[in-house]
Amino acid sequence: MSTVNRQIVLASRPTGEPTVDNFKLVEAALAPLAEGEVLVRNHYLSLDPYMRGRMNEGKSYAQPQPLGEVMIGGTVGEVVESRNAHFKPGDAVVGMGGWQEYLRVNADQRGVLQKVDTTHIPLSAYLGAVGMPGVTGWYGLTQIINPKAGETVVVSAASGAVGGAVGQLAKARGCRAVGLAGGPDKCAYVVNELGFDACIDYKQHPDVKSLSKALKEACPDGIDGYFENVGGMILDAVMLRANAFARVAMCGMISGYNGEPIPMSAPQLILVNRMRVEGFIVSEHMELWPQALKELGMLVATGKLKYRETVADGIAAAPQAFLGLLKGKNFGKQLVKLV
Amino acid sequence: MSTVNRQIVLASRPTGEPTVDNFKLVEAALAPLAEGEVLVRNHYLSLDPYMRGRMNEGKSYAQPQPLGEVMIGGTVGEVVESRNAHFKPGDAVVGMGGWQEYLRVNADQRGVLQKVDTTHIPLSAYLGAVGMPGVTGWYGLTQIINPKAGETVVVSAASGAVGGAVGQLAKARGCRAVGLAGGPDKCAYVVNELGFDACIDYKQHPDVKSLSKALKEACPDGIDGYFENVGGMILDAVMLRANAFARVAMCGMISGYNGEPIPMSAPQLILVNRMRVEGFIVSEHMELWPQALKELGMLVATGKLKYRETVADGIAAAPQAFLGLLKGKNFGKQLVKLV
Repeated sequence: MSTVNRQIVLASRPTGEPTVDNFKLVEAALAPLAEGEVLVRNHYLSLDPYMRGRMNEGKSYAQPQPLGEVMIGGTVGEVVESRNAHFKPGDAVVGMGGWQEYLRVNADQRGVLQKVDTTHIPLSAYLGAVGMPGVTGWYGLTQIINPKAGETVVVSAASGAVGGAVGQLAKARGCRAVGLAGGPDKCAYVVNELGFDACIDYKQHPDVKSLSKALKEACPDGIDGYFENVGGMILDAVMLRANAFARVAMCGMISGYNGEPIPMSAPQLILVNRMRVEGFIVSEHMELWPQALKELGMLVATGKLKYRETVADGIAAAPQAFLGLLKGKNFGKQLVKLV
Repeated sequence: MSTVNRQIVLASRPTGEPTVDNFKLVEAALAPLAEGEVLVRNHYLSLDPYMRGRMNEGKSYAQPQPLGEVMIGGTVGEVVESRNAHFKPGDAVVGMGGWQEYLRVNADQRGVLQKVDTTHIPLSAYLGAVGMPGVTGWYGLTQIINPKAGETVVVSAASGAVGGAVGQLAKARGCRAVGLAGGPDKCAYVVNELGFDACIDYKQHPDVKSLSKALKEACPDGIDGYFENVGGMILDAVMLRANAFARVAMCGMISGYNGEPIPMSAPQLILVNRMRVEGFIVSEHMELWPQALKELGMLVATGKLKYRETVADGIAAAPQAFLGLLKGKNFGKQLVKLV
């Protein structure tokens, strides 16, 4: 076993678009375990859009990522050493291990490390469809949009880990599911593999008018629910096609992460259409995770919830992979494989 | 009794700001009553911001006001003739009588005409605090904002019929109530007579930054609920001071009624603050009116819910009074006195 832990720390805060120079690879010595601690070798690191927000200073729903410290992030891995009665070497676990090869953690704190079953569900899925992204899609769809069978649900970033779950869960509830994604390959995947009814390539639509027209064609009965991952022009276009009492679950506004203004052009449509627009953060609703994970795990184990992964190789590749994710270069869940 | 009914019809649709030329005074003969019909002499006509929306063509939550027909509107009056067993001359009634001196209506249709008690509540109050505006404030406050004691509720157009009710109902629930109104007289009234904790004169604040600073001072614990009557810069400023899980009841966007763009500058704050922004139309929630009117009527009858009225004289004065209302020239509920 190695005695060196390679880590990525936040070296500086981005001004506008982040670059690889905002990150730094460092090596730390692996100290011996204290009583109660567990050493996990991280197999996969999860890269997620929310991490971009943490790189900024200033008011947000979460504390900023401290400079010089290991970037936060979800991980799955295997226990390699344990001084905790609840964990033994060989256990597959999920946790917030951060951008590093090893996680040393006191596992007595409830929830800090969860054992997972890899008999029917691949380990990496616990970072995607059966993890935070899947639960995020589940929460916004079931708790905010709460669609009835026959309603139309639209989701942006539809080929991603969150968006893919939203659409498939909507289909399972008898809804029409319409995605938005960037490029013909992603759109074909969303329809042919994930089973959405339609998918719009937003890159083919330079303005709101054009996109709104495409939405009209894809949503002949209007839009009852929208799961927002992107913000900006897409939200404007969706609002033009919203039905009375439409619900918008606001999960991400990736188009404004670098500080670009992303105004909502016509908020009066919230009134005209009696819409409900609600922001949420899935980690504030831990009481619903067991219910969500049960449904998601069952669907993945039985092959009914499909997903795709883009896998970068090795901890040093994490910053570049993360920057690619922010530009939509990934296809499905973005992971970094460490073992 | 007169045999002539003077009416205001919509003569043309406004392009931008409406003018008196969009309206026309006409005289109609009063035909004899058919079986089931009631003739009401309208004592007061209600003027409300929603009527501006009806003057436009195009998609909205309601049908546009047809050209050449009597402008819609709530009225209170007295039955002067009846061929309906449920109504007799002398009955005080509230209905949607429109901008005219007399209403002839088949009163068998449920809800078209309501008898009201004027022993403890003035007749005109049924168009304001104990009518549609009061219920509007009640609905947005209790069903959308639903504040807990100790929370801070902000309302725009605070000296108006809706806003005044929102703040006083919030105070009755143990909240801090902060108003926004135009000019020192209205602000003094909101604090000294209506009992709000503070009121900001938005005319003193040329930009979002300045208004946001004033809100910070008036709301030292942030904003938990906002009742939106106006839109535009005020909404932007409020969102900058919103607490986590703040609720916005979107009732009116008067600043955009003439087609001006009124973008929401930073919708990402809905996500950052996990806000809920919800539009509503009070006429879609008739099942709650009895409960609302019971509370409002009791508060008005016992002098605990205060309001002010601006009264224009005679049907011919209605258009000018309505245009003044849209510019905030009224002080409290805008009425037209017809008798």
